Amino acid sequence: MESFSDRTYAILGTGALGGFYGSRLQKAGADVHFLLHSDYEHVNKHGLVIESKDGDFTLPDVRAYDDVQKMPPCDVVIVAFKTTHNHLLPKLLPSVVKDDGVVLVLQNGLGVEDEVAEIVGDKRVMGGLCFLCSNKVGPGHIRHLDYGEVKFAEYAIGYNSQGITTRMCQIAADFDRAGIPIKLAADLLLARWQKLVWNIPYNGLSVVLDARTDELMGNTHTRALVEELMWEVAAGAKSCDRIIADSFIEMMLDWTVKMKPYRTSMKIDYDEKRPLEVETMFGNPLRLAQQKGANLPKITMLYQQLKFLDARNSH
Amino acid sequence: MESFSDRTYAILGTGALGGFYGSRLQKAGADVHFLLHSDYEHVNKHGLVIESKDGDFTLPDVRAYDDVQKMPPCDVVIVAFKTTHNHLLPKLLPSVVKDDGVVLVLQNGLGVEDEVAEIVGDKRVMGGLCFLCSNKVGPGHIRHLDYGEVKFAEYAIGYNSQGITTRMCQIAADFDRAGIPIKLAADLLLARWQKLVWNIPYNGLSVVLDARTDELMGNTHTRALVEELMWEVAAGAKSCDRIIADSFIEMMLDWTVKMKPYRTSMKIDYDEKRPLEVETMFGNPLRLAQQKGANLPKITMLYQQLKFLDARNSH
Repeated sequence: MESFSDRTYAILGTGALGGFYGSRLQKAGADVHFLLHSDYEHVNKHGLVIESKDGDFTLPDVRAYDDVQKMPPCDVVIVAFKTTHNHLLPKLLPSVVKDDGVVLVLQNGLGVEDEVAEIVGDKRVMGGLCFLCSNKVGPGHIRHLDYGEVKFAEYAIGYNSQGITTRMCQIAADFDRAGIPIKLAADLLLARWQKLVWNIPYNGLSVVLDARTDELMGNTHTRALVEELMWEVAAGAKSCDRIIADSFIEMMLDWTVKMKPYRTSMKIDYDEKRPLEVETMFGNPLRLAQQKGANLPKITMLYQQLKFLDARNSH
Repeated sequence: MESFSDRTYAILGTGALGGFYGSRLQKAGADVHFLLHSDYEHVNKHGLVIESKDGDFTLPDVRAYDDVQKMPPCDVVIVAFKTTHNHLLPKLLPSVVKDDGVVLVLQNGLGVEDEVAEIVGDKRVMGGLCFLCSNKVGPGHIRHLDYGEVKFAEYAIGYNSQGITTRMCQIAADFDRAGIPIKLAADLLLARWQKLVWNIPYNGLSVVLDARTDELMGNTHTRALVEELMWEVAAGAKSCDRIIADSFIEMMLDWTVKMKPYRTSMKIDYDEKRPLEVETMFGNPLRLAQQKGANLPKITMLYQQLKFLDARNSH
């Protein structure tokens, strides 16, 4: 196995997610290159500040870039910005990923790996699912509140299951050395549908009904609707030959009832007047299921409601 | 035909709707008895004031009551309060309707005539659908903004179509003399489902998405959702063997696009923190369709969302 310092990392999008994981990797000794936009001047001068439940730290010196063309080709290119900026991918990716490197998509929703494969080829794509609660509270200043686990899975054309590969083990080892909890999944598409079981009902309804998770679970009608939406996600997964067990849905419901009242990330985006990740989280799963012949009426309705609210919100 | 003055009217609920129609009847010479609640003292002393696009008028002397037991039995008892007060029907109706009288239900939604028939017997019930835009702007003070038509239909057990009866023609003649545009319908259940084609999508979505009709029609996603909800209403009607033609749905959509930007009555209730007519407008149609084996997923979801918002709104 290569040593840690040999593998170079590019972080595209140094915000709540990319800033957190990239800083942890650099702090553990990795060679990390950060692409920034509005925070470039500040971070280039002052570095990154991480407040974390696992311990605060600062990185006064980071390799910051305001232009992807100035970045060296890297072994692992982490896509960490919101999917609402994915129209930039064709411009950003080609030069920054080494010929034998890999693009690791740490975004929400479904279908982004397909887009990335179109750009860099299907052998240079991996997916990652983050269970992270963090916010950017100022330029180069990130507050990590809870969780942090990442689940990796390999991508292949048509989302065929690839099992556990050497490459993902090597990257996982780097994350592990950086203190980031890691899981490896054999089947990226199953992992993405599983995450949607939670994301679709709670993110969607939290915006449409202006509600926290505890409010949605405390009312019998929305409690039932959440569960029905989860069943539709399972039906979407099934249309792709991925099976989500009843017990998984029950676990998600129980877990949500027990967790602290939570304002979802989509609700935070909405409240902050940022564009919503509607297409990757709702549109892409719906279109995929529809291609496979599955009809998901309630998710469709939630998508339509969110498209309306998103359009009005970003006026 | 009996003369106008022989037929006595009771108005249960002297608000934007009952106050308007009752005043028009009295002004035309009918013997009208008004039941009031919070406005009783004021109206008993000062009468009713109607501002109307068809001409303003005042009725300084009205027969006002604060207790249904003090009212004489009447030929026509008009139920004009919101369906959110229908738990009062068993207490209000028995004494005020003559043995050969009739209860005329001028409320929104579906299924109220069944409830009334349980109380006064199935021979003494009629339904009426109002296309009226009016508001109560103060005690005994009603502002009539637009429209005003009433469509009558006879009720029978199981909502069997009754055709046009002598009784409905007589009452229609009174309304006609009072200058109220009248239509007669042979089939009450068809008329009620037809009205829901408009009421369900626009009332429901206007509350959930905080939107006027023009906003809902101006966005492609909600425009499609409105139409899909209308198709589900038609499917509900079909489960009851009532056919709503494609052209009827197209007409409702076209008409709504052309009308002035409109805040629905349910949205006004919501903004005023009044309880919503969710059960008669959504719950009853859903339960009826479900009994008949029809599954209406998007209307169900709208119902669930409204139940959540209604519960929170009236806290």
